[in-house]
Amino acid sequence: MGMIGGGEGSLIGPVHRMAARLDGLTELVCGAFSSDQAVSSATGEREYLDRSRVYDTWQEMITREKSLSGDLRPHFISIVTPNHLHYGPAKMALEAGFHVVCDKPLCMSVAEAIDLHETVERTGKLFCLTHNYTGYPMVKRAREMVLGGEIGIVRKVAVEYLQGWLSSPVEKSGNKQAEWRSDPARAGIAGAMADIGTHAFNLAEYVSGLEVKAVSADLHSVVPGRLLDDDGNVILHFGNGVCGTLLASQIATGEENNLSIRIYGDRGGISWRQMEPNTVIVMWPDKPPQMLRTGTSFTGSGVVAPMHTRIPAGHPEGFIEAFANLYRNFAHNIIAQMEGRSNDIMADYPGIYEGVRGMKFLEAVVASGLNNSVRTSF
Amino acid sequence: MGMIGGGEGSLIGPVHRMAARLDGLTELVCGAFSSDQAVSSATGEREYLDRSRVYDTWQEMITREKSLSGDLRPHFISIVTPNHLHYGPAKMALEAGFHVVCDKPLCMSVAEAIDLHETVERTGKLFCLTHNYTGYPMVKRAREMVLGGEIGIVRKVAVEYLQGWLSSPVEKSGNKQAEWRSDPARAGIAGAMADIGTHAFNLAEYVSGLEVKAVSADLHSVVPGRLLDDDGNVILHFGNGVCGTLLASQIATGEENNLSIRIYGDRGGISWRQMEPNTVIVMWPDKPPQMLRTGTSFTGSGVVAPMHTRIPAGHPEGFIEAFANLYRNFAHNIIAQMEGRSNDIMADYPGIYEGVRGMKFLEAVVASGLNNSVRTSF
Amino acid sequence: MGMIGGGEGSLIGPVHRMAARLDGLTELVCGAFSSDQAVSSATGEREYLDRSRVYDTWQEMITREKSLSGDLRPHFISIVTPNHLHYGPAKMALEAGFHVVCDKPLCMSVAEAIDLHETVERTGKLFCLTHNYTGYPMVKRAREMVLGGEIGIVRKVAVEYLQGWLSSPVEKSGNKQAEWRSDPARAGIAGAMADIGTHAFNLAEYVSGLEVKAVSADLHSVVPGRLLDDDGNVILHFGNGVCGTLLASQIATGEENNLSIRIYGDRGGISWRQMEPNTVIVMWPDKPPQMLRTGTSFTGSGVVAPMHTRIPAGHPEGFIEAFANLYRNFAHNIIAQMEGRSNDIMADYPGIYEGVRGMKFLEAVVASGLNNSVRTSF
Amino acid sequence: MGMIGGGEGSLIGPVHRMAARLDGLTELVCGAFSSDQAVSSATGEREYLDRSRVYDTWQEMITREKSLSGDLRPHFISIVTPNHLHYGPAKMALEAGFHVVCDKPLCMSVAEAIDLHETVERTGKLFCLTHNYTGYPMVKRAREMVLGGEIGIVRKVAVEYLQGWLSSPVEKSGNKQAEWRSDPARAGIAGAMADIGTHAFNLAEYVSGLEVKAVSADLHSVVPGRLLDDDGNVILHFGNGVCGTLLASQIATGEENNLSIRIYGDRGGISWRQMEPNTVIVMWPDKPPQMLRTGTSFTGSGVVAPMHTRIPAGHPEGFIEAFANLYRNFAHNIIAQMEGRSNDIMADYPGIYEGVRGMKFLEAVVASGLNNSVRTSF
Repeated sequence: MGMIGGGEGSLIGPVHRMAARLDGLTELVCGAFSSDQAVSSATGEREYLDRSRVYDTWQEMITREKSLSGDLRPHFISIVTPNHLHYGPAKMALEAGFHVVCDKPLCMSVAEAIDLHETVERTGKLFCLTHNYTGYPMVKRAREMVLGGEIGIVRKVAVEYLQGWLSSPVEKSGNKQAEWRSDPARAGIAGAMADIGTHAFNLAEYVSGLEVKAVSADLHSVVPGRLLDDDGNVILHFGNGVCGTLLASQIATGEENNLSIRIYGDRGGISWRQMEPNTVIVMWPDKPPQMLRTGTSFTGSGVVAPMHTRIPAGHPEGFIEAFANLYRNFAHNIIAQMEGRSNDIMADYPGIYEGVRGMKFLEAVVASGLNNSVRTSF
Repeated sequence: MGMIGGGEGSLIGPVHRMAARLDGLTELVCGAFSSDQAVSSATGEREYLDRSRVYDTWQEMITREKSLSGDLRPHFISIVTPNHLHYGPAKMALEAGFHVVCDKPLCMSVAEAIDLHETVERTGKLFCLTHNYTGYPMVKRAREMVLGGEIGIVRKVAVEYLQGWLSSPVEKSGNKQAEWRSDPARAGIAGAMADIGTHAFNLAEYVSGLEVKAVSADLHSVVPGRLLDDDGNVILHFGNGVCGTLLASQIATGEENNLSIRIYGDRGGISWRQMEPNTVIVMWPDKPPQMLRTGTSFTGSGVVAPMHTRIPAGHPEGFIEAFANLYRNFAHNIIAQMEGRSNDIMADYPGIYEGVRGMKFLEAVVASGLNNSVRTSF
Repeated sequence: MGMIGGGEGSLIGPVHRMAARLDGLTELVCGAFSSDQAVSSATGEREYLDRSRVYDTWQEMITREKSLSGDLRPHFISIVTPNHLHYGPAKMALEAGFHVVCDKPLCMSVAEAIDLHETVERTGKLFCLTHNYTGYPMVKRAREMVLGGEIGIVRKVAVEYLQGWLSSPVEKSGNKQAEWRSDPARAGIAGAMADIGTHAFNLAEYVSGLEVKAVSADLHSVVPGRLLDDDGNVILHFGNGVCGTLLASQIATGEENNLSIRIYGDRGGISWRQMEPNTVIVMWPDKPPQMLRTGTSFTGSGVVAPMHTRIPAGHPEGFIEAFANLYRNFAHNIIAQMEGRSNDIMADYPGIYEGVRGMKFLEAVVASGLNNSVRTSF
Repeated sequence: MGMIGGGEGSLIGPVHRMAARLDGLTELVCGAFSSDQAVSSATGEREYLDRSRVYDTWQEMITREKSLSGDLRPHFISIVTPNHLHYGPAKMALEAGFHVVCDKPLCMSVAEAIDLHETVERTGKLFCLTHNYTGYPMVKRAREMVLGGEIGIVRKVAVEYLQGWLSSPVEKSGNKQAEWRSDPARAGIAGAMADIGTHAFNLAEYVSGLEVKAVSADLHSVVPGRLLDDDGNVILHFGNGVCGTLLASQIATGEENNLSIRIYGDRGGISWRQMEPNTVIVMWPDKPPQMLRTGTSFTGSGVVAPMHTRIPAGHPEGFIEAFANLYRNFAHNIIAQMEGRSNDIMADYPGIYEGVRGMKFLEAVVASGLNNSVRTSF
């Protein structure tokens, strides 16, 4: 693969590289890691890249790598830049014939999203959007249970994503991660909702198998001087009377990365928490709750979870393993495409459609938030 | 004390009696336990009451007991009937010179609530509304921390009360508890919001020390044929940009009695869960989270919690002990009044004001729910 | 009931009184609460006792109360004194025709224990030894599962009781509880093993349904100057190759009251922790672990647990409720005896046999500990 | 690196490969993955190895790879075979000038261990023994606290490693992992004690900073027909009156991989559980317990833990990341040696000394177990 963004100081760049490496299916061969040439070079060196394949700009990288022969050329480009630099590189890479992995949210607007969607469909290239939390085996197990009707008809969804790291104005004291996330020019129309709310939204749709039809949103910029939301509460309307709540906050002081989802059907309920990701609790009306656990050695975990697990139960798998499941499935799907095979289960990763959904959600949430929480469809 | 309601088959009657007995300050001396004479008698017998003091109606009980000499007469009347039978007995008991303990919600309307409030003020009698969850030592500790500024300025409140026992229409198959709770004539204008939502609301105001100014509510009658809400999501507006969420559901299949509260200030956050009530987790932005624990032997639990704890740390105290804290504080306050003393800390129990707040909340939530979740002040 | 010991400053006296009161079956009518007359009087007053029935010595109390007419006289005497004052009062009370509740350990030696056992059998009086941890509903549920063969043939038992309150020499700075527990004249031949080790031992035999045949013990007096053990590790031999471990420590710094038991059979395993007593986790080789929960409303909890539960699931029951289950069962058994009925399930409380077992365990542990951990049968 | 063992069907082989890959410092270049040629070839192909560097025997591999030029030749050999095939390959690889990573336990006897120790010292090659549980950041944090005196003088250690996967005789129904582990010819003198007891032993010495001087062991072969221990309890004597317990079982039905350690000093206590590895609970006698958490963004985690963490708090790191910390530190140390630098902190991985310790422990445990649990020094 080639990488755009992710130079020294990046949070998510190293995560992508570790995730890509973990299963031995992907090799980093080129990169435009930073707009700062020195940074890009240093990263290339640390990654033991051929100096000639470390580029100053992503445009140059795509242009040059496209011209290489097929066995040298990367199969896909991974885009790990701030939000405003997703659309351009993704579009150009797709048009140049590369598959694309892109960090979330997809881009800056629904219009851009639709254009990328069209581009993906037209070029026939594969696209993975790293809503990485769906890569956890127990998230996949939860989805499998819900879609299989094990908890009956879904009635209620409660999803939360709470962090505390922006509870003070750290963007003003040199925190690079906070700087771009709180800058509308680079982050887009939303702050916490874009950064983590879209993860929660994606998780809710993925596990429930339902689509949100409308939202009523209450958004806040709690820390004085901040231009984008850092806290928000959203009521989700899935249609047919199915409702839910989505809380996203980056000013929940002391919270680390507290993403959770609970879904209640008429025959059971499930609960999953990202910070202890190897357990799904399943609650029943008439028998004791069960703890479903990650692990290849364990029956009762359905079909999908074991395929996304690497070691026996009791050996905790974490964030990187879940992230790696996206890369692995994407790689398997590229291989399948090359070999002319379809690849059903391994095709399970978030893609361009999820990217469009996320942007629609964001625009609706912001519209509702600006308009006294009025119910807004999308 | 005398008791109205709480005959055989009652859920909450025995809880009140155990709570009243626990600390040896209160003795049950008379009762009108049921409108069914046989039931009332049987309960009186099980409680070893003098047969002459077991009554067929609450009116008769109040009238007769009022006329007894001071050392025989109960100091207070405890009302543990369904909602529609709170106002009448409470009013009559107060007017007859008895202090009153009453189950929640206070009554059927804000108008009734205001009238009771006025009656309490006029008669000078003491009034305790059994929002029992505020009786937990760690809830009191949490409030003490928040009011003492330990977590800084409050910014965000998330309270939930999830149960699953009404996820099927058990009111149609003989469940007495479900029958009256789903019957507007006995429960009032709301179902889950009245039964458990008011507990969550009271807890939010108690621990945060703030008052809710407005709500946006989304209410549902999920189980077909049910007339009152069995599920609802409320956005709470505390003013000054402080917001929160309140979830109350009785169709969260598999949930037992999952009440929790989290409050985030600008300097810390706290989290408490009723089902493991002896721990409050306190989160800090810059040091490890702490687990504050119930227990008289333990420093660091502040001033109030130890007064509401009976045994050293590690000996779990539960629902009945918390409930008993209300009765104990109420009894101490009656004694203080008799002895002409003020009794500050022991006066810490929910009273008539909290009852009025709860009814205002309920009417606002129902109004908002009926009006497309419009923000409704109260 | 009448009470011996438990005056002001006592830890366990108030617990016994709350436990006795909780279910409304027992009334405290007389007491010799302390060898200090002023203390005894003050306690009697706080308990609203008739001044004439508060005694200076237990001998006087037993003598005088014995002579009262049947409807005034207490049915049983509760002994809540330090260890060295169990045997004498128990013996005299039994001989005087009273049933007896006695705190643990039973007495100071196996010889005393056997004598009490003989006395109980000869007098036909009922005897309850307050190994209160067996009163928890989920402990009873665990026992029911094990005895019912649900986890197969028992193979392994791991029981622990860890506290930290004696990790410094608090007995030298005025802690009354620590003083007598570390004084051989009042505590007996063992410290932590007598105080909490016997609880763990009793729990292991109760839940497993097996009897320990021999022990290998390693005892320590960790805090300098302490005469009795404050920490110990014991290997338990149940015969037939079934083994286990028992850890008892009062110098496990920071531990509150961490009693736990795990039992593994050839078809499943169970795990219970006193500090979260409303859950038993059941582990299976071939299906997800389950969380069995306290609560009358919940099926799947077997027959016995619901009888020892007072409120629906999710309303935590704690230490006092478990303790009260012993008093309640004892009271029911007294009533049954008075009415000439047998009372099987309600007869489920620890008695004189368990007291003898505990003393045999203690003497064997101390013998092994003094003899280089040699395996010692009993 | 080159790898010996770890062909298709191996449990630990893929773990080593993932761990080695994660940080991008190590590349697999050759392997003798199995004594079955077809298996070895298949694994080589899956790993995209040059066919000429996939060998039929480890002897051949070492001989051939040794003769390659320095930039082609692997820096180290990783040995992931059953126990009986550690000594030979390790010895030959060291003598051939390779650094060595070796799975645990080190070998089959103390004699072999001492010989390997001597070989390492003589050749000056680096040696890493994959006691991988010491790679968790919170284990390193715990050790740092203990060694820094934060919990005072260590008094008590309780370590456990419980699994249930051998609770039935799966070695007789085709489970390859069980087969060799229960075969004395391949596993050595011990079963569970060798396989997981040595991990627990290593963890206890690593975190406490103390050395075990003697053991009293009780070993069992619970499943009929099994030749080696599948369950055992050991009392650990660290000298100076410091004692501990070590439980190791593979017949604890339903347990997954339940490794835990608790250490109590005179000023505090710590508790860590492998199945939720991102938290260490620290208990204090006079203030609330704290939860120390993995995460680079979090102060209060000391110096060492952040160096072994890859992502901010709340993003769980698991088994593979911990395992990878050994490979990463080993790789850094090789680089340091090549560059003539010392490399203190990164040199923190278990080595040949820990291997000798483990074998001494094993021989002492077996000797004690065979001799009625007599205290056995080593």
